[in-house]
Amino acid sequence: MMGRIACANVLSDLYAMGITECDNMLMLLSVSQKMNEKDREKVMPLMIRGFRDAAEEGGTSVTGGQTVINPWIIVGGVASVVCQPNEFIMPDGAVPGDVLVLTKPLGTQVAVNAHQWLDQPERWNKIKLVVTKEEVKEAYQEAMFSMATLNRTAAGLMHKFQAHAATDVTGFGLLGHANNLAMQQRSDVAFVIHNLPIIAKMTAISKAYGNAFRLLQGLSAETSGGLLVCLPREQAAKFCAEMKSHSSGAQGASGGAWIIGIVEKGDRRARIIEKPRIIEVPPRGSLAARQDNSASGPELSTNLS
Amino acid sequence: MMGRIACANVLSDLYAMGITECDNMLMLLSVSQKMNEKDREKVMPLMIRGFRDAAEEGGTSVTGGQTVINPWIIVGGVASVVCQPNEFIMPDGAVPGDVLVLTKPLGTQVAVNAHQWLDQPERWNKIKLVVTKEEVKEAYQEAMFSMATLNRTAAGLMHKFQAHAATDVTGFGLLGHANNLAMQQRSDVAFVIHNLPIIAKMTAISKAYGNAFRLLQGLSAETSGGLLVCLPREQAAKFCAEMKSHSSGAQGASGGAWIIGIVEKGDRRARIIEKPRIIEVPPRGSLAARQDNSASGPELSTNLS
Repeated sequence: MMGRIACANVLSDLYAMGITECDNMLMLLSVSQKMNEKDREKVMPLMIRGFRDAAEEGGTSVTGGQTVINPWIIVGGVASVVCQPNEFIMPDGAVPGDVLVLTKPLGTQVAVNAHQWLDQPERWNKIKLVVTKEEVKEAYQEAMFSMATLNRTAAGLMHKFQAHAATDVTGFGLLGHANNLAMQQRSDVAFVIHNLPIIAKMTAISKAYGNAFRLLQGLSAETSGGLLVCLPREQAAKFCAEMKSHSSGAQGASGGAWIIGIVEKGDRRARIIEKPRIIEVPPRGSLAARQDNSASGPELSTNLS
Repeated sequence: MMGRIACANVLSDLYAMGITECDNMLMLLSVSQKMNEKDREKVMPLMIRGFRDAAEEGGTSVTGGQTVINPWIIVGGVASVVCQPNEFIMPDGAVPGDVLVLTKPLGTQVAVNAHQWLDQPERWNKIKLVVTKEEVKEAYQEAMFSMATLNRTAAGLMHKFQAHAATDVTGFGLLGHANNLAMQQRSDVAFVIHNLPIIAKMTAISKAYGNAFRLLQGLSAETSGGLLVCLPREQAAKFCAEMKSHSSGAQGASGGAWIIGIVEKGDRRARIIEKPRIIEVPPRGSLAARQDNSASGPELSTNLS
């Protein structure tokens, strides 16, 4: 899963520019000197396979790279493509009136940490009043599948629905990347975020843990999050509907999409309103998801403006 | 210097295919979590500058990359180019009768280690009978400059003198890379290495230290070594002469070139003859180098069959 997530994250930089094809991938791997031989022989081939599988899902393949020894495991890579101007969308065309769409729920860092805390009583005690172990396990699974999901479907739909700009949401969190994107715009625009789609219960955990993740401030890292896409107002709901039709449950699905904000005239910054609406996204394997499969639909946009 | 060497090594993979231009470079950096802030603020910008300076010397520039935190410092990168078929030389065209040329002396790993041992009496005592501290310092400087030297001049001359195949000599040592190259040949050939150009005194150190480096077996790592080039017999001396004319002393020079062996009919392997001739290459800053600036000339080929 770590290999898959790394590959999804590497490819995501292409997808954020609306590029759906990758010519070539390199894999960069550091093998931990602290692993014993048995673990190393077991773990590293699985990690490499995950990376390769995700590359194959992206219609590309790993042709080279480099492996080094290091105290920590590291996996990453490089995705390259040579393409025509009409194959990519420069991330600088947002205009006032556009709508902001996010294609994966937030909260993956919280989910991964909470899952580790299942075995750490001192930390678990801080959150056990707001979440069950089962809910943490479901959220962890959701986070894994979400991070391993390629943003390729979204990249393709960016062309179909005339996206004006996009970025992928990774280590700097939603607001960090939204700010970076806002800074690059040709027009005087500001991004205003009203809704935060978050894996169910992660908001409660984040609050119970003293807001250390700054999840509701949009600053929790997402590692391999979705695309944040600026779309013409009349296209946003259709984009979300089509993303949802691709996300019907299976692993490798596109993960849905949520309208989260609007583009206004402004000074090339992004902000989250004071009391954003939290959209609790049920993990796809959960009972809630099975009962309510409309949760990731575009109708959530009604709360905007 | 570490940044420069890393960049030279990254570019070297292109140069080994006779490619002299690089379209784009990425820099990959891991900053050590164990450095204090003061050292980090001092060291990392210098390392980045070294990498960028070498990229600039290669006529290219660093446009992106990634930085992570890690116990160890790591610096590396990716060099990409899109080019026409006539701009690269596939490394598979060696034929019997070709001559093997090496464009940097061997022994950089020995030099770097010996330099560290200046402060480790127990290790220094093992080699102090065969080398002076001054000689170790000169060899270390030579190794630094040599590893930081781009193989770009050699890449250009590969076209001028119709090279049939080449590889760069790095972590697997001369014989390791010679074997890899031999395996890729279209013709049934074997590479036979007769001469080993080695930074002066490194052979003596290697022997005094119990042959731990396997330098004379061609297995000592070179990190950022020269190109091993298969040239038509009638071109090899001219290639070396022209390499030498580019290497007139200054930092950033091409580093000379030595005829080290021949291509015979064989089973796609490389070997070093039982008693190879050792060519002691004086460090460029040394008295020996100032007295004898012919040391890296092609006349050394006279020893060959």
